[in-house]
Amino acid sequence: MTSAPPTETRDYPSVNALSAPLVERLVADAAALRLAVTQAEGGARMVDAGANTRGSIEAGRRIAEICLGGLGTVTIAPTGPIPTWPYTVTVHAADPVLACLGSQYAGWSLADETGDSGFFALGSGPGRAVAAVEDLYGELGYRDTAARTALVLEAAGGPPDSVVAKVAEAAGLRPEDLTFIYAPTQSLAGATQVVARVLEVALHKAHTVGFDLHAILDGIGSAPLSPQHPDFIKAMGRTNDAIIYGGRVQLFVDADDADAKQLAEQLPSATSSDHGAPFAEIFARVNGDFYKIDGALFSPAEAIVTSVRTGATFRGGRLEPSLVDASFA
Amino acid sequence: MTSAPPTETRDYPSVNALSAPLVERLVADAAALRLAVTQAEGGARMVDAGANTRGSIEAGRRIAEICLGGLGTVTIAPTGPIPTWPYTVTVHAADPVLACLGSQYAGWSLADETGDSGFFALGSGPGRAVAAVEDLYGELGYRDTAARTALVLEAAGGPPDSVVAKVAEAAGLRPEDLTFIYAPTQSLAGATQVVARVLEVALHKAHTVGFDLHAILDGIGSAPLSPQHPDFIKAMGRTNDAIIYGGRVQLFVDADDADAKQLAEQLPSATSSDHGAPFAEIFARVNGDFYKIDGALFSPAEAIVTSVRTGATFRGGRLEPSLVDASFA
Amino acid sequence: MTSAPPTETRDYPSVNALSAPLVERLVADAAALRLAVTQAEGGARMVDAGANTRGSIEAGRRIAEICLGGLGTVTIAPTGPIPTWPYTVTVHAADPVLACLGSQYAGWSLADETGDSGFFALGSGPGRAVAAVEDLYGELGYRDTAARTALVLEAAGGPPDSVVAKVAEAAGLRPEDLTFIYAPTQSLAGATQVVARVLEVALHKAHTVGFDLHAILDGIGSAPLSPQHPDFIKAMGRTNDAIIYGGRVQLFVDADDADAKQLAEQLPSATSSDHGAPFAEIFARVNGDFYKIDGALFSPAEAIVTSVRTGATFRGGRLEPSLVDASFA
Repeated sequence: MTSAPPTETRDYPSVNALSAPLVERLVADAAALRLAVTQAEGGARMVDAGANTRGSIEAGRRIAEICLGGLGTVTIAPTGPIPTWPYTVTVHAADPVLACLGSQYAGWSLADETGDSGFFALGSGPGRAVAAVEDLYGELGYRDTAARTALVLEAAGGPPDSVVAKVAEAAGLRPEDLTFIYAPTQSLAGATQVVARVLEVALHKAHTVGFDLHAILDGIGSAPLSPQHPDFIKAMGRTNDAIIYGGRVQLFVDADDADAKQLAEQLPSATSSDHGAPFAEIFARVNGDFYKIDGALFSPAEAIVTSVRTGATFRGGRLEPSLVDASFA
Repeated sequence: MTSAPPTETRDYPSVNALSAPLVERLVADAAALRLAVTQAEGGARMVDAGANTRGSIEAGRRIAEICLGGLGTVTIAPTGPIPTWPYTVTVHAADPVLACLGSQYAGWSLADETGDSGFFALGSGPGRAVAAVEDLYGELGYRDTAARTALVLEAAGGPPDSVVAKVAEAAGLRPEDLTFIYAPTQSLAGATQVVARVLEVALHKAHTVGFDLHAILDGIGSAPLSPQHPDFIKAMGRTNDAIIYGGRVQLFVDADDADAKQLAEQLPSATSSDHGAPFAEIFARVNGDFYKIDGALFSPAEAIVTSVRTGATFRGGRLEPSLVDASFA
Repeated sequence: MTSAPPTETRDYPSVNALSAPLVERLVADAAALRLAVTQAEGGARMVDAGANTRGSIEAGRRIAEICLGGLGTVTIAPTGPIPTWPYTVTVHAADPVLACLGSQYAGWSLADETGDSGFFALGSGPGRAVAAVEDLYGELGYRDTAARTALVLEAAGGPPDSVVAKVAEAAGLRPEDLTFIYAPTQSLAGATQVVARVLEVALHKAHTVGFDLHAILDGIGSAPLSPQHPDFIKAMGRTNDAIIYGGRVQLFVDADDADAKQLAEQLPSATSSDHGAPFAEIFARVNGDFYKIDGALFSPAEAIVTSVRTGATFRGGRLEPSLVDASFA
């Protein structure tokens, strides 16, 4: 007895409705999580999770769940596959395409174009799905509505008024309806929420290599919690290396064997010509020109792809504990 | 100073009261979990978690917690003892006998006797404790009451009216007070909720070998998340093998050393003469006659039994990673 | 770009406000967790979690989260670094100094001074921060207020009236505003909540060796769930050995390399001259005189210390699986 692929007329969930309670709980627990919540002059709510606050790993864990639009869970396990860095961030999303690409992906480029602050950050989280200014939303066939929304920024400060106004306009909301949650990569929360992108980068790479996103049904990923570093390049390097050399994902896809096998082979970071050195070294080698780094590098070290259509599982890449050590040491 | 075994006059919890909020949350999150919720003509609520829907591993995890009557937790860890299949389902129940046998065990045989649908499924979950038609409830000395209840079915479709009516009558409730949650073994949710029976099968075997159930105080179990397969026999084989060759439990019992030691020796699947091949192979060998398979096979690979009366721990069986690989590959 | 250490004007959270809902949920779930809740004649609420009740590991897990003042999470993972004792208690606290020393530490000596009960127990949990009779609160610069509070006691019975009165007076509350949660070390809940002190003992040792507590920003710890033993000395020995020989912590500190390195070297239990034998053996060697045991022994086997100021990580000690086995067997 073989079950036919289900024909599904789907109601999409609202990543904003699901994550709004998580945002309010983050704000309510600000003192416990060592965050600072303020209201900007223009009315937007600002949550500093590591710029001028201590923040915490727990804040980063919760911010990651907000990024996932309330569609996934992020937990920290006492052991993982990298023996020397035992504490392991695990991400699980029931609908990883919507959770990771429709919400978590840091895909909204937010620069201060009218002011002189020099502010630049990539916006992540449920607010992206309300504004839906990225082409990706057309491909996903998803757009969300919300009376209030939140954006997460990997940034050393809150956005200036011009950026708040830009977001408000794109979302069709007032500044007072917006919450900006920001933390630099160097901070406890910042590093944690970036490592929690281990599943997202796999989905992004699946998208890049042309795999049908609607065929990705479920996914789980894990990567070692990277130690913080006060230098931005080193901090970014470590969070990247946690994924590139210490990250693993398992995807469950509705695809035939050839497509599932190809995905397993294409996903891992080892397909990149830049693979093999800690990220900070690669970054130095290209003189800090991010766009000279092969984009294929940004993916987990190991991929396990299970076809629910055929029952076969395919594997690609492998963990590189010694490169994780080289990066984190 | 030795503490005497506690004399406990016990108030039993209601598996329905504890799990009802979990059922409502499952329904409320239907879009996120890719479920379909409908009302049958007769009034019963139907939750399709994988028959004509995609469903999700997270839906299966939550269905497993509903099965446990709200008395246990089911989590997914990034690593476990089977290196090639790292994602691991963990089940923990404060009162494993009540949670697993009083609620989770798929012990209620539900066949369409009056209609011609050919429908057959084993009912699991808190509704069993309201109907209490199984002899097991007499042995447990437990029966629950509830104004509404839920049953979980490992099935490729919802139950027909005749089965709904049978359940309603046995439970003393109207069809509109019933929720049926169903998913086939081939589905993401179906496979997950079956693997989450790793602790339940240990308790069932303890019961079969005559161990005093009231002496089992606590228990934890884990097994690798098995990859889905579109063929029912293969899917069933994999979920069984996850437990039979990849499952491990630790039970905490109030028993003397001889009884605890004997339980540890009797629990593992290796006590079965059928042990040693993937389940689908065994099933083919008996020409698909389930009842020709030695019942002793249905238990975890490894058992750890701790006597809280004496402080001694006994072990039996062992994990068989190569048989898990043979089944899942 | 190097981020300057944040200057933080901090609002401290209330460990009572955060943990009060956890206390109410424990009481509400008493039947499921196999606890007995009674009201003492004087009005205080008593929660027996293992003295004359069975209790449960889940009760111990929740009691540990109450001890942490609602500032941390306690989870049980299916594998950890000690292969023979796979189930592993993990503790994570966003603000480990406040969570562990400001609330969880069993630092309030509660003896029956006026009655003849001979009762003695060390008080733990959020009630300590309301009474704040310990010098430690002056050093932490923390004191909490609450209209109701809870204390956790590692004890084989509830406190007598004289102790209740002492607590009420110190806290400025009436007996009916107090909840006492108690479980002996021999019980499921008692053993679990003690093993969940793996992070706390690390912080206590950091304090003892003079490390600046305000520099400890975050922490995670884990230790194997120890098997219960009916004998108090053996039970205490096992919970201690779970930490001393099977415990591991990672601390994130704002300190320079020399201080972080020194902390990593000073933290582990191996710095103690008593290290090397199961605790019960050491206890017998000193004829049961607890105060003859080197205090440096009470700490995790392995410490990982990451300086968020410099990005360097230092390590000290190592896990001793064979000593865990010797203790638990």
